[in-house]
Amino acid sequence: MGDPAGIGAEVVVKALADPAIRTRARFIIFGLDEFLRYAADQVEVNPFWFRLPHEEVDRVESGVVVADFDEYATINPGLRRPTAEGGHASLRFVDEAIAATRDGGADAIVTGPIHKISWKMAGCKSPGHTEYLAGAFNVRRYTMMFVGGPLRVALASTHVGLFDLRNSFTIGRVFQPIDQLDEALRRWFGIAAPRIGVAGLNPHSSEEGRFGDEESRIIEPAVLMAREAGINVEGPLPADTLFWQAARGKYDGVVAMYHDQGLIPVKLLAFDSSVNVTLGLPIIRTSVDHGTAFDIAGANRAQAGSMKTAIRLAVELAARNHQTTWPQRERLTVARLPATLPGSEENPPA
Amino acid sequence: MGDPAGIGAEVVVKALADPAIRTRARFIIFGLDEFLRYAADQVEVNPFWFRLPHEEVDRVESGVVVADFDEYATINPGLRRPTAEGGHASLRFVDEAIAATRDGGADAIVTGPIHKISWKMAGCKSPGHTEYLAGAFNVRRYTMMFVGGPLRVALASTHVGLFDLRNSFTIGRVFQPIDQLDEALRRWFGIAAPRIGVAGLNPHSSEEGRFGDEESRIIEPAVLMAREAGINVEGPLPADTLFWQAARGKYDGVVAMYHDQGLIPVKLLAFDSSVNVTLGLPIIRTSVDHGTAFDIAGANRAQAGSMKTAIRLAVELAARNHQTTWPQRERLTVARLPATLPGSEENPPA
Repeated sequence: MGDPAGIGAEVVVKALADPAIRTRARFIIFGLDEFLRYAADQVEVNPFWFRLPHEEVDRVESGVVVADFDEYATINPGLRRPTAEGGHASLRFVDEAIAATRDGGADAIVTGPIHKISWKMAGCKSPGHTEYLAGAFNVRRYTMMFVGGPLRVALASTHVGLFDLRNSFTIGRVFQPIDQLDEALRRWFGIAAPRIGVAGLNPHSSEEGRFGDEESRIIEPAVLMAREAGINVEGPLPADTLFWQAARGKYDGVVAMYHDQGLIPVKLLAFDSSVNVTLGLPIIRTSVDHGTAFDIAGANRAQAGSMKTAIRLAVELAARNHQTTWPQRERLTVARLPATLPGSEENPPA
Repeated sequence: MGDPAGIGAEVVVKALADPAIRTRARFIIFGLDEFLRYAADQVEVNPFWFRLPHEEVDRVESGVVVADFDEYATINPGLRRPTAEGGHASLRFVDEAIAATRDGGADAIVTGPIHKISWKMAGCKSPGHTEYLAGAFNVRRYTMMFVGGPLRVALASTHVGLFDLRNSFTIGRVFQPIDQLDEALRRWFGIAAPRIGVAGLNPHSSEEGRFGDEESRIIEPAVLMAREAGINVEGPLPADTLFWQAARGKYDGVVAMYHDQGLIPVKLLAFDSSVNVTLGLPIIRTSVDHGTAFDIAGANRAQAGSMKTAIRLAVELAARNHQTTWPQRERLTVARLPATLPGSEENPPA
């Protein structure tokens, strides 16, 4: 449900109120029954769930169950800002969701919007669900991916200053999202032979070194390594052409070098319905890609498009994940990655 | 016409073959009659122009005139690669077009695709028309702008390596495109009170300094200066939201900090029909935003969308430019810019 003070309850209710979505799977909402009822009242739908104290929720046999944490019911619903209580509650929700995936009670996690200041006030250092989940599953190699409209985009870097990226832009950093995107497209998206396009970092992908050498020094070796590992990948390609081609179906997935390079096209084509997916976790995790929107919370003004798509996608990916066989990569040669990737030192040659 | 070996002749013929475009203005094509006739033959249209030796072309009274440079007619039309002859010819074409705007023979220049290697082989140091025109008109402050679909985007930087931009990213560099975009939107685009959005450099526009300080150190002061000069401008704003909002009409123009940030959304929404406009010149100049495409030249496979839009836009802008009054900026306070802008030194504080 995310932070109780945000629009989480509202978008969950709006999304699952749609029978086309609700009937696709069985759902456990980790959250506060009272907040969800308030949202249902505002949205004018009848509650479509039954409530259980969270400690009694095991595996759901049908429909929607709210795993209720009434120890947090004292949170003031009118308080639309970051609080320690909101942080504690939203951390609890995700902890229990993680536990459910571990004991077989859930096949996928869809996360609602949390606020990093609330988490900080609650003593948690993770800036968001992604890093928190990676920590919980003890995963160091993970990739942020966005699905929006016709685009599936994995990022080689996320929340880092654009010019600071220079200090951590390595071959490994570019190889990893290619590798994890390829696996995800095969295993979860059901694409037998994914075609991946990798964006250049510089304008016109540097025009053979005229504007920057990161293409030849970092991206090309990463693409070469990926090809040796049997991945059907092209690049580095000029980003302004690549996303247009990908949107028209030339590529099944794109690897962007930095946040805005990937998010500008995703948001432009699917602002209200883009979804964040974490690659590299042992479980399926999708997420809304918007924040808590405290300013419009409680006002029945939130768009549930992103939550709907996040739920739909999680169901779709989990269904494919259940198939015992999935299209394996045809390894041309087995790439043996050195323990330390060339160029992976923190400060690349200037 | 651009480089004779490229698709210039073909896209000019295809664009002006459309009566809806040809009847909008009077045209002089600076180029090679023979190459244009070959293109017309391939495209299967009858030549719709009359030919004059270029030295006899003055002001055109109606229709389309080809100002023919038969001294270059010896160029081998089958040679689809950069050559010194192609460079010399395409430089001559633009020189004469410039002369025509100077003596009142033309109100605007539309440039076709040239090749920077051809120009280099011909002894010209300019990498493209934009810099060449700036030099010819002795202009140091000019801005590259792209118009595509619903977007009008001015760039604060162009062909520079992404990480190298750090060394020349200054307040003046951000202020100038805001200022020149505002003037162009009023004067040429006929927008009485333009609303401009300025993109941040870093992800999420740095979230108040969490990922980089360029927003507070450089972009915010530039936006402030522009506001003081009476410009209706907002920013820095997260780029992934800004372009989506601009595409929906919230802003009349956007200032992007670097090439891909502006070109990814423009190309995504208008790949075959985006146009390059130069701001800061004393004349109107639009251009196709594609290259010579030697690989498909002479094969009747070129898309003329960009040339069509470039011509249409040039006509539209020139018509507005002729109106004796245009909406002036309502200066709230007269911004007196210091000779050296703060932060405009080449190496900003790290």
